[in-house]
Amino acid sequence: MKIRETLPIIRITGDKKENLSDTIVTETPITIFLNDQEIATIICTPENILYLTAGYLFSERFIRTKEDIIGTEYNEKNGIVRVEIKKQIDPLKDLRHTRFITPGCMSPGSFYNAADAVLCKKVESNMHITTNEIITVIRQAQLSSRLFRETGGVHSAALCSGSKVVFFIEDIGRHNALDKIIGRCLLEGMPMDDKMIITSGRISSEVLLKIIKAEVPILISRSAPTTKAVSLSKVFGITLVGFARGKKFNIYSNEWRVTC
Amino acid sequence: MKIRETLPIIRITGDKKENLSDTIVTETPITIFLNDQEIATIICTPENILYLTAGYLFSERFIRTKEDIIGTEYNEKNGIVRVEIKKQIDPLKDLRHTRFITPGCMSPGSFYNAADAVLCKKVESNMHITTNEIITVIRQAQLSSRLFRETGGVHSAALCSGSKVVFFIEDIGRHNALDKIIGRCLLEGMPMDDKMIITSGRISSEVLLKIIKAEVPILISRSAPTTKAVSLSKVFGITLVGFARGKKFNIYSNEWRVTC
Repeated sequence: MKIRETLPIIRITGDKKENLSDTIVTETPITIFLNDQEIATIICTPENILYLTAGYLFSERFIRTKEDIIGTEYNEKNGIVRVEIKKQIDPLKDLRHTRFITPGCMSPGSFYNAADAVLCKKVESNMHITTNEIITVIRQAQLSSRLFRETGGVHSAALCSGSKVVFFIEDIGRHNALDKIIGRCLLEGMPMDDKMIITSGRISSEVLLKIIKAEVPILISRSAPTTKAVSLSKVFGITLVGFARGKKFNIYSNEWRVTC
Repeated sequence: MKIRETLPIIRITGDKKENLSDTIVTETPITIFLNDQEIATIICTPENILYLTAGYLFSERFIRTKEDIIGTEYNEKNGIVRVEIKKQIDPLKDLRHTRFITPGCMSPGSFYNAADAVLCKKVESNMHITTNEIITVIRQAQLSSRLFRETGGVHSAALCSGSKVVFFIEDIGRHNALDKIIGRCLLEGMPMDDKMIITSGRISSEVLLKIIKAEVPILISRSAPTTKAVSLSKVFGITLVGFARGKKFNIYSNEWRVTC
């Protein structure tokens, strides 16, 4: 399936009207069946579907390692991914994401479910990076954004080591792009505790929880964080960088990993 | 609860390092219980929660009109909204959003569930708008984006009539901002078939399905659509405008509603 298509459009510029062709990004629904139970439908860019599946299952705590997966089958025609894992799935317990509600649920470092509250741990990586490396790698990631330049309709995520981009992925969803990066690392056995991730999207608590679970020490965004993402990054030892554009960026937490 | 907070940050500009304060957007989890069943947790900007709830329930087809709601109770402390509606809820049938899969699920105008496929109908509104009114109202909406100017961390949605903004709402989620607009119209009895909606976010099929269900004839975005959103807008009679910035915009479908 194509990830872009050319369609006729009408462009208005003030009083001027032109008939043009434009490149527009596609989307497709992918439905994941886990041990024959339907667990999710994800609207995404139709490529890297097995990375997306692995990353999603990891972020949702159905799997911890590649070895938890027995087999995977993707049918592109009907958009169905069937995954068999070693763990048994209990539809009423595992598939209903009921919220973990406590009186302190508005406090920094709080979670939306009990598993996250118990299993998340502080990221201890001693990784360091210089401000120049950050500025260089932001430029590298931007140069890789081909689908964005063509369509303006996608987010991106990049796994980076020092000033080098290791994996770069674009998707119509900012969560999908991150899951595809995390899933690729998982399936290819690439360690994440000595890397950083750059995302084009805003940093909410949901994005930060993915980074905490994947134990990535540094997260960089072109865009803004929320206060809850900032407080989670402080509690869990993540260096959080936002508004990274050109030679400028803001550091919100754990600045000790960034040297001038 | 505050919708913004001031936090200390470190700003890097090339080799320069400054300690500053910055305004950062907050977020909160809202959990909706419908007839005592937990149905969803939504991470959102902590204001207009009852509009969000009504819009979400409408978009997910739990309610059709304000009269379907018997009562609503929002507890700000624990972030729980309890809604009682006339319809009975069957947890296994209504709360598991299983996908509606057909061999033609990739074709234009396809749906993700059977209810949408049966219930969505073509928007027949004869509403017209001029290119100048579009350019004026885009500027009006942009001038209203106060939280975005302060924090860079929110999306917005505006309900507009001619060149006037009727309701304007900002939220950390683009889907939430739309649901808040739709919910407000529902609760206040404001007709939507003679209005247009401006959104700051990208237009995927999920966004377009909200617009189809609310029967809004014109959707304008600052950003890009997907090809599936374009095909749905053609099939369901929505005028779809994208990349609306300054005096420029693209029309993707049903251009007959736009006069020069």
